[in-house]
This record gives sequence, structure tokens and C-alpha cells, in this order.
Amino acid sequence: MLGEVQATAEELKEKLESVIAMTSFATMMGAKVLSISPGNVELAIDVKPAIMNQHHGFIHGAVLGFVADSACAWAAGSLAGDVVTAEYKLHFLAPAVGDRIVGRGRVIKASSRIVVAQADVYAVKNGSEKLVAIALGTLSKVDRK
Amino acid sequence: MLGEVQATAEELKEKLESVIAMTSFATMMGAKVLSISPGNVELAIDVKPAIMNQHHGFIHGAVLGFVADSACAWAAGSLAGDVVTAEYKLHFLAPAVGDRIVGRGRVIKASSRIVVAQADVYAVKNGSEKLVAIALGTLSKVDRK
Amino acid sequence: MLGEVQATAEELKEKLESVIAMTSFATMMGAKVLSISPGNVELAIDVKPAIMNQHHGFIHGAVLGFVADSACAWAAGSLAGDVVTAEYKLHFLAPAVGDRIVGRGRVIKASSRIVVAQADVYAVKNGSEKLVAIALGTLSKVDRK
Amino acid sequence: MLGEVQATAEELKEKLESVIAMTSFATMMGAKVLSISPGNVELAIDVKPAIMNQHHGFIHGAVLGFVADSACAWAAGSLAGDVVTAEYKLHFLAPAVGDRIVGRGRVIKASSRIVVAQADVYAVKNGSEKLVAIALGTLSKVDRK
Repeated sequence: MLGEVQATAEELKEKLESVIAMTSFATMMGAKVLSISPGNVELAIDVKPAIMNQHHGFIHGAVLGFVADSACAWAAGSLAGDVVTAEYKLHFLAPAVGDRIVGRGRVIKASSRIVVAQADVYAVKNGSEKLVAIALGTLSKVDRK
Repeated sequence: MLGEVQATAEELKEKLESVIAMTSFATMMGAKVLSISPGNVELAIDVKPAIMNQHHGFIHGAVLGFVADSACAWAAGSLAGDVVTAEYKLHFLAPAVGDRIVGRGRVIKASSRIVVAQADVYAVKNGSEKLVAIALGTLSKVDRK
Repeated sequence: MLGEVQATAEELKEKLESVIAMTSFATMMGAKVLSISPGNVELAIDVKPAIMNQHHGFIHGAVLGFVADSACAWAAGSLAGDVVTAEYKLHFLAPAVGDRIVGRGRVIKASSRIVVAQADVYAVKNGSEKLVAIALGTLSKVDRK
Repeated sequence: MLGEVQATAEELKEKLESVIAMTSFATMMGAKVLSISPGNVELAIDVKPAIMNQHHGFIHGAVLGFVADSACAWAAGSLAGDVVTAEYKLHFLAPAVGDRIVGRGRVIKASSRIVVAQADVYAVKNGSEKLVAIALGTLSKVDRK
């Protein structure tokens, strides 16, 4: 997704932001890159209850899923270039309440074709973080021909 | 999510639609119940590329994830009443292209506290369905006290 | 694992049995191929309580895991040749009691490098089958150079 | 599995060893508890190639699966008492070669009925550890009536 392994953090961030700009779902969600380095990424979205809640009044799991999947994919992409998600598993650990969702992704293992990555997802309320979801996924490199 | 096991298909649909109406994320996505019966559900969303795409131009995985998770949760809810998703695993099988996404969920096993459910997610283009994602998840019953 | 896509069922079975003969864990477990065709496999093991139980007296989950993983891998191998398991998810649905464990694997999607497969695992007691586990996994093709 | 939350590390180890003694599969595998404390466990098995290999000559995935599942279940049990595995996901990260397999499990989140736990599995060769598998699972508490 993001290009060469040797890219600097600044280059990685610029490339990722250009990918987000081309991703209408991410733009609609308001995804922002907080930091990125080879194998690690941190992103956030500001919660908009009018479009992001479920019926118990908590933040919808699909919002956490978006943050988790993006954190895995972008962490993988920071090492492996263009990737697609092959699969992920997502655990919901606690009801998500707050004004911000933060996701932190890291690469567990990068092989020649496949990257395994993990993400922690936090709900931030009044400046205090709570772990609300955890994900473990497989990303597959996209060939450039 | 949906109430008693003995409910008729019509009652299940009404209850589910009232849940969707209280779920701002589902409303924003335009989720519609096509059919529901104890242990099975079929839902659909119409694709809006302006808010649902990823950077390769395909439908974003989070959209498929929403449909898959909803199909599992609503199938489980049709048997078990109010449920929350404990975890799910989602495989992306093919790039999703089309004007409609359809999800079909079914209960694999309902125990006293936990329901295991599976969902198939299809992209529909020119009336033709293509399997684009598959999910397997655990739903946990919510106690009514 | 098993060679060319065009192989007959008989050739697939012979190749798989030669793989099992080289797999000391499968030999120790007594794994037998009941049937195999491109994209599908059925295997069984006879239960030996003296080495296969857990502390509640049921058949150990690792035995079911072996059958599930093998069913996924061998179904994938019947289409894709030599494969390794990248990951799988395994649900335990009911306590496993009986004298035989049967696993049925099938390919959900075979891409150029990756195969997604599913397995159902049954405990057989007095000739009657009970679904005790279900798995969904990713297999990765091994390059032949 | 292991009793009360307030147990000391020594009591937890004794209880777990009595569970292992009643688990014929774990005894056959030669599972040993290296350390245990509330929410954490470390176990090991000595590799016996004559019964633990797969056809490429590596340690069989089912052996790693046993260690991973046990690490999750025993970590969960150290906090929650008697548990059963509801589901787990296992990633194979590298071929497993060595004379010993070590698993380290830790609880991510313990709720009233469900525990989420993670395990890292290492192959030890000539005293050097290599991460070969990672698992993330859901454990369900067993009611005592």
C-alpha cells in the first residue's frame, strides 16, 4: 500500500494519506494517521454518534472493525507495500463509549508474500483510553506487474 | 436482539427493523432485511461508491464486515434474543464490485449462553451474485435482569 | 501437498496416504483417508482414550484440531498441490464423545497463492454422528523451484 | 480449571498439574508447567520427532496447536477456574524446528462468563527461541452447580 521498505516515516505518512484520500469509506469515517513507522501505525477517528452507533447506544462494531482492519493493513503496508486483507479476526472486549477511537497496528511477522499483523483498538473518553477490541489478521501482498 | 424464540417471521422482521432504526450506523449504510426466520437472516445494502470504496476502487472491506457481522448477529438474535458479538473472523475471497451487497447468516450452534453463526457475503452486479466474503463468529447472549 | 490438479481420485488418495506415512503425528493418531476428490476430503481417526482425552473425559480439543486442520489442508492440497496452513480458526461446538472422529474438508475459494477451506468435525458414537467442531482456514501454496 | 482467583502461584501449579495428570493427551505429549500466576502461564513440551512431525520434517501444527490452546486455557483458568475453549485462531509464523516447544499464555480480558486470551508459541533449538505460532482465543467458564 505504501511503497518501499526504505521509506522514511514522513514519506510513509504522505503515501498513506494519499491512499486514505482515495478511499471514500476512510474519508467518510474521518480516519487520520497519528504516526507511522516501518511495521507500526497509529490512527484515529473522531466519533460521530449520528452515524456510528449501534442500538445499545455504543459505538458500532463495524467502526471498530474498520479501525482494526486499517491498523493491521497499514502496519503491514508500511513494510510490504501494497497489500490486501486476506482475513482478520476481531474480538470485542468491552462496550465502546467515547469521543475518539484510536487503533494501533503492528506487524507480527512479514514473510515474502504474507504479513501477519495485530491491532489494539481503544475508545477514548475524557482523555482516558480503554481497550475495546483486538484483532489478528493476514495481509497478502499485491503484485506489481 | 430480537426477542422470543417463538416469534413468527413477521414479528422477527418488525423487531429487527426497529433495532436497525435505533442503529445509526446501519441506517447510514441503508441496511434492509430481506428475510428472517429462526436461525436465518438475509440482508442487503445498496452500494454508494461515494462513501463505501477503498483505494483500488472496490467496495471497502469494512462494508462487507458490517454485512457479515450483522448477518451473524441477526441470525443469532432470531433464536437467542438480544445478543452482542463476542468475536468474528472474516475472510475476503474476491474483490467486491457491484451495486448491491447481500449477506446471508445462519446459526451453526446455539448453546445456553453462546451462539456460533456463519455468514456468506455476496456482491451483486447486473443481477449476478459473487461470493466475496465469509465469516464465522461467536455471539453472546445479553442477560435481561 | 498432493500434486497436480488433474489427478484422479485414486491418485489423490495414494499421494495423500504417502504424505500421511511421512507424517509421524498423523500416523500416531491413526489418520485414515475415507475419500478425496478435487476440493473435498473426508478423513477419520479411531479414538484411543488412553492418549486422546482431556480432564472432563471428553476427546481432547487438540485431536479435533488435528482432524480439522488436516481436513482443510488436504482439501486444499487436492486442488493446489503442496500447501502449508497459514492460519485457521476452530470452534468447539459440543463435548466430543465417541469411538471415531470424522472430518470433512472442502475448498471455499482457491486463488493463485492462497486457498480458503472449511472443515466440519463429527464425533461418531454407536454409528450416530454429532457435529463437535467447525474450522475455517487459510492455506498457502508451497513454491516448487 | 484451576479454582479460585485468590490461589497462590504454588496452588495454581499444583491444581494445573493435577488437571494435566487427568488429561491423557497432555500426558502423552509430556506437557510441563514452567510457571503460572493469575492471568499468565508458561508451559513446555519436549519434542519427540517419532510422533510429532509432519511430512516436511517440521514439528506438526497440531503440536503447536495443543501448546497454544493449552496456554490460552490455562492462563484463563488461572483467573476464572474451570473453563472450556469456545474457539481459537492459530497463525503459523515459521517452520517449527527444535527440541522443545514453549508456550506462553496471557489473559487479555476476563469478563463474567468469557475470557479472551492470547498465546505465543516458540520452538527452542540449541537454547535459542524462535516465535513459530500465535493464537487468540475465547474461553468459556464452566458453571459449578
